[in-house]
Amino acid sequence: MGRALVWDATCVDSLAASHLPSTSQKAAAAAESAQMLKRPKMFLLRQAVSNARQLAPSVRAMSSKGPLVDLTVDNDGVAIMTLQRPPVNSLNLDLLKEISKSLDDVAKNKSRGMILTSSSPTVFSAGLDIMEMYKPDMKRAEEFWTTLQDVWFKLYGSSFATAAAINGHAPAGGCLLSMSCEYRAMVGGKFTIGLNETALGIVAPKWFMDTMCRTISMRQAELALTTAKMFTVDEALKCELIDEIATDKADAINKCKTFLKKFEKIPPLARAITKLKMREEPIKNLQTSRQADVQEFLSFLKNPKVQQSLEMYIQALKQKAAK
Amino acid sequence: MGRALVWDATCVDSLAASHLPSTSQKAAAAAESAQMLKRPKMFLLRQAVSNARQLAPSVRAMSSKGPLVDLTVDNDGVAIMTLQRPPVNSLNLDLLKEISKSLDDVAKNKSRGMILTSSSPTVFSAGLDIMEMYKPDMKRAEEFWTTLQDVWFKLYGSSFATAAAINGHAPAGGCLLSMSCEYRAMVGGKFTIGLNETALGIVAPKWFMDTMCRTISMRQAELALTTAKMFTVDEALKCELIDEIATDKADAINKCKTFLKKFEKIPPLARAITKLKMREEPIKNLQTSRQADVQEFLSFLKNPKVQQSLEMYIQALKQKAAK
Amino acid sequence: MGRALVWDATCVDSLAASHLPSTSQKAAAAAESAQMLKRPKMFLLRQAVSNARQLAPSVRAMSSKGPLVDLTVDNDGVAIMTLQRPPVNSLNLDLLKEISKSLDDVAKNKSRGMILTSSSPTVFSAGLDIMEMYKPDMKRAEEFWTTLQDVWFKLYGSSFATAAAINGHAPAGGCLLSMSCEYRAMVGGKFTIGLNETALGIVAPKWFMDTMCRTISMRQAELALTTAKMFTVDEALKCELIDEIATDKADAINKCKTFLKKFEKIPPLARAITKLKMREEPIKNLQTSRQADVQEFLSFLKNPKVQQSLEMYIQALKQKAAK
Repeated sequence: MGRALVWDATCVDSLAASHLPSTSQKAAAAAESAQMLKRPKMFLLRQAVSNARQLAPSVRAMSSKGPLVDLTVDNDGVAIMTLQRPPVNSLNLDLLKEISKSLDDVAKNKSRGMILTSSSPTVFSAGLDIMEMYKPDMKRAEEFWTTLQDVWFKLYGSSFATAAAINGHAPAGGCLLSMSCEYRAMVGGKFTIGLNETALGIVAPKWFMDTMCRTISMRQAELALTTAKMFTVDEALKCELIDEIATDKADAINKCKTFLKKFEKIPPLARAITKLKMREEPIKNLQTSRQADVQEFLSFLKNPKVQQSLEMYIQALKQKAAK
Repeated sequence: MGRALVWDATCVDSLAASHLPSTSQKAAAAAESAQMLKRPKMFLLRQAVSNARQLAPSVRAMSSKGPLVDLTVDNDGVAIMTLQRPPVNSLNLDLLKEISKSLDDVAKNKSRGMILTSSSPTVFSAGLDIMEMYKPDMKRAEEFWTTLQDVWFKLYGSSFATAAAINGHAPAGGCLLSMSCEYRAMVGGKFTIGLNETALGIVAPKWFMDTMCRTISMRQAELALTTAKMFTVDEALKCELIDEIATDKADAINKCKTFLKKFEKIPPLARAITKLKMREEPIKNLQTSRQADVQEFLSFLKNPKVQQSLEMYIQALKQKAAK
Repeated sequence: MGRALVWDATCVDSLAASHLPSTSQKAAAAAESAQMLKRPKMFLLRQAVSNARQLAPSVRAMSSKGPLVDLTVDNDGVAIMTLQRPPVNSLNLDLLKEISKSLDDVAKNKSRGMILTSSSPTVFSAGLDIMEMYKPDMKRAEEFWTTLQDVWFKLYGSSFATAAAINGHAPAGGCLLSMSCEYRAMVGGKFTIGLNETALGIVAPKWFMDTMCRTISMRQAELALTTAKMFTVDEALKCELIDEIATDKADAINKCKTFLKKFEKIPPLARAITKLKMREEPIKNLQTSRQADVQEFLSFLKNPKVQQSLEMYIQALKQKAAK
């Protein structure tokens, strides 16, 4: 968008810069006005983001210490969400519920952005807790899967900006959480990341696949998903599964903050709507198949062979732990 | 497609070469015949390209000097379309109308291909002219947006081959025009290119996004659109937003010509239908949502906050120009 | 998927490894159980793969010598399918029928995977045999195209793992066959690969395009398809049209085997369903447009200009062979 009549050649070099609103008032007005650009189906979204324009002074009040998720806001107004369910942040119903509630808190409190990380020195998240699948109470199992879907809707489709500081292994569901963010900085060294569901005889749901296909190429996603590939940090960087390699957790968080700072002068509403228009298709896909997706998971759990397989897996883990 | 019975091992090395028709008569026949490969919905397209088989001798008659677009055909039979609305080729209704008409001329006159460039030494096109959006006459605003859609349909979906010689900055609508071509050579140095709409509080329409997602990866497109990224020439080359870096405008045009020469021995109709089959999805998407897309734009303009934001922006530009 | 309660920090480093089932019994159970993850529309698929869990002892019985396709199983239990229709493996109805039948044999006999290669020292496959298109019997032509579709459905949508050892030129249909596999190792040197249909005045069907767009980027696919690009081996590796460069045929086959070995500890059913979920969209697209796709091909053959073009092409080939 340029304004030709009042421009002369001398202002051309500052073309891009001049597009940045110079006052916060102007930014707010521009953001507000952009509301009209959305399609009707974006109506609910509009309400969710309508107040997301600036960091509110009340934001530090959001800090909370839950048993499984620590949510604080640092001096820059960035929310840090730390998963802290030892030893490996396995995603059980309780942890998923706390993540879901914490995502609501970040949305309500108008944070400038959120960084997802882990309290473990070696694991970002080990993925879904198989104890939620072994001899399950079906009512709880349904709540478990529905909550996982909720977490993905809230994280992948958040109006606030998101980044993952991946400070440990991130298999399966751990990889999904990080891919649902807008940016990934991962601590270098021995850690690995990937959707390795097939190794356990499991098929990743279509929305896991969709999320990966919008992070790396379809070709690389097919290779990774079928071979249960756990990427080293270098491999992940090369195919853009992660965006940067960090030296340690603090560095990963700093790199995420540097990413979030890019939005400082971008009107938040225009940013949020742009993000959601880009992510509209996979979100709509799960919205329309949500119930079928739950039923698929429950049928899977009811299969005696699945239960037998899980029992053997749990026995193997116990023996390993006993050594 | 090979013919086994009459081949022996000695002709194998010239396999690819033998696929190239050796006479223009043959090429014409092959092109004609390829008509039957298209689907019924491609019927209108077929008519549009049915005469696009060879450079007609009449092609130099196309040369014309409009006030805002210069259209000439060079000695190689390539049409050069130069945007010349000083100072920064802001896309107002008049310029868009001339571009639209010029694209019709290129299509009618069976050019061997078209190169889009700018008369400005520093700006390819600054994008949409915000004076078309500030306190607009609604009838004119509707014509403005409809004409922009027309230009995209005609350029992105052209049956003739297209390339952009990007000899200056190309933000927002300027980036869109270049991405709608089939090839991009950009003059190196300080120039930048990108869809930076969010910086102004604006959301790029879905068809801008679709066009970018078919040029660079979805991952890179999301990053670029949400952060309003203006790519340096080196960054643009790395993620394939542009295809080549040129030393100056003449070099950029030469590189575009070299690209267009690749089609010399390709039957034009098969080439055109292949291009349009590849681009069918985004074109169909806008065709089916065209009216909604216009209404979205008009609603946006009717919002008082939008008008307020535009006024502030124009004031800022005026003050900058006055210094 | 991790099990937190029984884990401590010492077992974290073996996180990925611990996901690999340690006994074949467990793998079988896990595979079986994964059946429940599929959607209803995957029902037929389920039957096709339900027995694909392990290499059956009977697998060597599959070896057969057809006139046009040689199918053997090596000591590692991998099926090697060799196209052997001299001189250039042009795909006529007879060859396509044998390929189709051989793919059924591999599926029935629970092979650990299949490698597709050629008996020719210089051509993988020259693509469709134009003698099937020149003055055709329409009933045979319909069978020809339907069989080509069948081969693609069976190869692109196979439940067993596939790789192509590309030991020679692979234009048009030859490129399609290799892209339909899950991995490509190509012998280096002078050989080329690509969908070069436009050079003959032909438009590649949409499912050829879909297959390429899921192998390389859409941007590169458009460039390649419109320019009839035959990639050198180095170019093909760079844009990921192939995965590896081999020194000779034996090396190409070894590289394919190394790829197939990655699936040794992956439960085959979970692998198969994951592959098919990833490939679901293009498969569904052709399933729903299959009849229209046949009619398009037949209309193409009925066009007198097409027949004239083919006659000229055949004459040119005959003259070349006579020299």
